[in-house]
Amino acid sequence: MDSIVVVGSVALDSVKTLWGESQEALGGSAVYFSLAARHFARVSVVGVIGKDFPKEHRHMLAEKGIDLAGLKELPGKTFRWVGRFGRDLSDAKTLATHLNVFAKFRPKLSPAQRRSKVAFLANIDPDLQASVLDQMQAPDLIACDTMNYWIHSKPEALRRILGRVHIFFVNEEEAKVLSRQPTALAAARVISHWGPKVIVVKKGEHGALMKVGERFYSFPAYPVESVKDPTGAGDTFAGGFMGYLTSTRDYDDISNLKRAVLYGTTLASFNVEDFSTRRLENLARAALEARFGEFVDSLQVPGGAARPRPLLTEARR
Amino acid sequence: MDSIVVVGSVALDSVKTLWGESQEALGGSAVYFSLAARHFARVSVVGVIGKDFPKEHRHMLAEKGIDLAGLKELPGKTFRWVGRFGRDLSDAKTLATHLNVFAKFRPKLSPAQRRSKVAFLANIDPDLQASVLDQMQAPDLIACDTMNYWIHSKPEALRRILGRVHIFFVNEEEAKVLSRQPTALAAARVISHWGPKVIVVKKGEHGALMKVGERFYSFPAYPVESVKDPTGAGDTFAGGFMGYLTSTRDYDDISNLKRAVLYGTTLASFNVEDFSTRRLENLARAALEARFGEFVDSLQVPGGAARPRPLLTEARR
Repeated sequence: MDSIVVVGSVALDSVKTLWGESQEALGGSAVYFSLAARHFARVSVVGVIGKDFPKEHRHMLAEKGIDLAGLKELPGKTFRWVGRFGRDLSDAKTLATHLNVFAKFRPKLSPAQRRSKVAFLANIDPDLQASVLDQMQAPDLIACDTMNYWIHSKPEALRRILGRVHIFFVNEEEAKVLSRQPTALAAARVISHWGPKVIVVKKGEHGALMKVGERFYSFPAYPVESVKDPTGAGDTFAGGFMGYLTSTRDYDDISNLKRAVLYGTTLASFNVEDFSTRRLENLARAALEARFGEFVDSLQVPGGAARPRPLLTEARR
Repeated sequence: MDSIVVVGSVALDSVKTLWGESQEALGGSAVYFSLAARHFARVSVVGVIGKDFPKEHRHMLAEKGIDLAGLKELPGKTFRWVGRFGRDLSDAKTLATHLNVFAKFRPKLSPAQRRSKVAFLANIDPDLQASVLDQMQAPDLIACDTMNYWIHSKPEALRRILGRVHIFFVNEEEAKVLSRQPTALAAARVISHWGPKVIVVKKGEHGALMKVGERFYSFPAYPVESVKDPTGAGDTFAGGFMGYLTSTRDYDDISNLKRAVLYGTTLASFNVEDFSTRRLENLARAALEARFGEFVDSLQVPGGAARPRPLLTEARR
């Protein structure tokens, strides 16, 4: 199994949505990413926690096969995020961010992590993202994410990182701000000039737009009837995408890239069905494959399809 | 070629967007629908115009093979709509609506139209939609659209029509209002209990959600880089959908229904590229098929795909 190094946050989240709330529950970009990617690849976390990080979270992640040797414990408290979602689930309101030990985070890779061939740089300070890449010996697949905060506060460092990654994951709104373009397509076109050969614009419930070379691929999200908590959906998407793509060992095959998008949105569709990481923790590979298969099938347009029983031509009047 | 009766507005639209404007240009739901459906089926319009309706529009439509025998000219002026689109292209601001002769519109079908097997009832008064159905002898495929105005002012008449149609086209926001549900999925589920076996929720730039029986199919819109004028996109979508589906003569085949969605969004993608009906007027079948083929292909995930040239694995650091 190939191995992915992921650097990002490990957090305790307090989230309120119209359908309930969670208090100091497991969260963080590196956690969501790992819980999604673990179905396809070995994942090795680079992150930091405080003395108060519950032991059961560590045990759960280790039990799922996630390598925590690079998860450093520092004196102090774990990173905390407090947020709220209203009716518009694409709009997270941050009520409080307590960096705590995350403020002192300086990623340091183990010898094994340095030799890893795949890296995902979740949305942290682009200078820290760069320091991770500097420590790696010869990665052949590098992806990153970012957020508005870094777009505004460290635009040059972000541009430098974009020149070093193969795949860039970015929210639609952030892509527009970063590129100063009015549409996701135009944004992806501009950003691709800065380096990444593959741009994945995440559109939440509306799916994703992927630019590969000069071509665009638009995919819907898996339709979810009841969303409880969208926290972590973007990192879960990236985890499913990167985990699957890594497992194929052929990152240039467009079918692999399409399947990566569809695994990403399928995993995200599970994640939003419950608070925190609950649904991801309990997700069996068989349930994942069943939904993925149903979703892929729903998009296929075979030349000569079999005919189901008459549905529209019954007499109605 | 099978024939579709479409009842709806024939209008002169004045539209302003961030990319330009048009003055008293050809528009109306029946017109957009016809110009899209004509590629696949014979279309016969039931509508009304005033004495001031430009002769060249009549000639253009007739030249495209659209049957205008049911387009009645009344004393007075043609229906006019004045609207504006801001940056959010899903949000049309109506500045003025002049019903003019449309206020006196009482659809009357010709003997040939009464014998037609397919009907599209564009978004007009649901009582008028019903009067069209009452005049038809034995249609085997009936579809309708509606709008917020009728949802609020004639809810009972609208519910009666929904009990008589096979396919219901509806905007996402209108579906939510009509069903009092928070999501497109839940809305489609509720509305399908009122009659239509197929619900197509139109999501503009985000594509469409189709409910067929108990299953959901979500499709993206064809990615358009520069939208000039979204006026008529919904009716163009319905025209492509209904035209294609009619041509297959098998309305129960799920592959046909999927292709209908994809022809609909492909035709809409052309329509929004220019003001009024300009792009639809000049659209050749070959250009339509080329874009449709490219779009369908972009969604397919073949088991064993051919490998394009290496794209991601070039050395980058």
